[in-house]
Amino acid sequence: MLITSKENANIKLYKKLSGSKKARDESGKYALEGARLVAEAIFEGKAEKLFFTENALEKYYELFDASKIRNDENAYVISDDLSKLMCSTQTPQGIYCIAGKNENIFSSDMIKAFSSFLILDGLQDPGNIGTIMRTCDACGIDCVLLTENCCDIYNPKVIRSAMGSVFRMNIFNELSFETIVDIMKDNQIKTYASVIDNTACEIRDVEFKGKYAVVIGNEGNGINKKNISLCDEKLTIRMNGNINSLNAATAAAIIIWEMTK
Amino acid sequence: MLITSKENANIKLYKKLSGSKKARDESGKYALEGARLVAEAIFEGKAEKLFFTENALEKYYELFDASKIRNDENAYVISDDLSKLMCSTQTPQGIYCIAGKNENIFSSDMIKAFSSFLILDGLQDPGNIGTIMRTCDACGIDCVLLTENCCDIYNPKVIRSAMGSVFRMNIFNELSFETIVDIMKDNQIKTYASVIDNTACEIRDVEFKGKYAVVIGNEGNGINKKNISLCDEKLTIRMNGNINSLNAATAAAIIIWEMTK
Repeated sequence: MLITSKENANIKLYKKLSGSKKARDESGKYALEGARLVAEAIFEGKAEKLFFTENALEKYYELFDASKIRNDENAYVISDDLSKLMCSTQTPQGIYCIAGKNENIFSSDMIKAFSSFLILDGLQDPGNIGTIMRTCDACGIDCVLLTENCCDIYNPKVIRSAMGSVFRMNIFNELSFETIVDIMKDNQIKTYASVIDNTACEIRDVEFKGKYAVVIGNEGNGINKKNISLCDEKLTIRMNGNINSLNAATAAAIIIWEMTK
Repeated sequence: MLITSKENANIKLYKKLSGSKKARDESGKYALEGARLVAEAIFEGKAEKLFFTENALEKYYELFDASKIRNDENAYVISDDLSKLMCSTQTPQGIYCIAGKNENIFSSDMIKAFSSFLILDGLQDPGNIGTIMRTCDACGIDCVLLTENCCDIYNPKVIRSAMGSVFRMNIFNELSFETIVDIMKDNQIKTYASVIDNTACEIRDVEFKGKYAVVIGNEGNGINKKNISLCDEKLTIRMNGNINSLNAATAAAIIIWEMTK
């Protein structure tokens, strides 16, 4: 089906999902763009509605079956003008998708099979959250938990920097820190607060055995005192150089790397 | 001195340095902005000309001595309109600086005191280069070498994501890969090419002893075959999960972390 009007209900929905967390929360859907990302969303069974320009269908023929897409009642061909309106990057590839959020409810049952957890407590930068998700995917962390004061994981910038990891990873978000810690305790999962504190255990000396979770705090302020006290132990990255020079995603990468050694 | 005209020679120079590598190469200077970064440039003795709005002098009084700056013949007070013209970020802090490039010439003598080297071969993304520089600074890598096909380290985006590391680190750039390898060999510095190749030595098993250098390749293509063959050994990061999911700055962080363990 061809869409050329920006008043089309699906185009309006896409724009809303792209710009508004409220719209994402109310609908349980989110927006994403780019050839590779949309191909992965289809592969992982997350894509609900697809939008392609004619040029994109031609250019990315290796990723998408154009004839199948033309016959798909949930796929739309859009004009280049509409594509420009929909895109949030500088070089639009002309491929967009509305995907369904992961609606699993966090519970003891849901996490029984998992051993390694990363808990993000109040991270604000979407690029950091996406990159951390990607690193968890690469290193084989089983499950990522995000507190309610983190940036929305369905924000287009998170989705873009996570490069498909949001589709693949086991993620539970918008949780209270207390709920997370309670369920961790119920399941004998040891929790570590990562802190900048030389009295904490150096991460290289931590023996990650059995089931374990590491908490990473906000970019500027770290984890607050109360939440640190709710964890079983503290760990730290001891540095040779200028400690302040480690950014959040880099510190997380080192922690994830050591968790999965 | 107050500047309000965009035709002022110093303002024009700042704009040129900010936008053009050629201008930076010809003058041996570069442009940077932001309160903390400019304060560090002054502290490290790199600042040559300073520009402040009145508001910025007031707001960042903890970082800068306003009366000293008003009496500095190389410091200028600029109007808010000029500040908007000069800034390349969304939230201008009203503080700008022209700094002098590091003009050290790469040679055996210059690197005699160093043991750990990171070699960036053809990295293109300024954010990646800046973040890697920052991680080297944090972890205590002695020296960073960049090939001539890397993005310019004096690009404002590199400077911004490096967060002052460019002032502090020992950096040599615009080198040919052959020159680097020759000088490494002359100094008995062992070179490792980082590759995605399961036959290479896993980085956790590499014993970094004596003097050593690790090469990190281009974001998309890695290091080319010829350059790999010029190195003494190959190393790799072996993953549990989805290997393609590791971005360049994250892979570099893991390598730097293991180099300095």
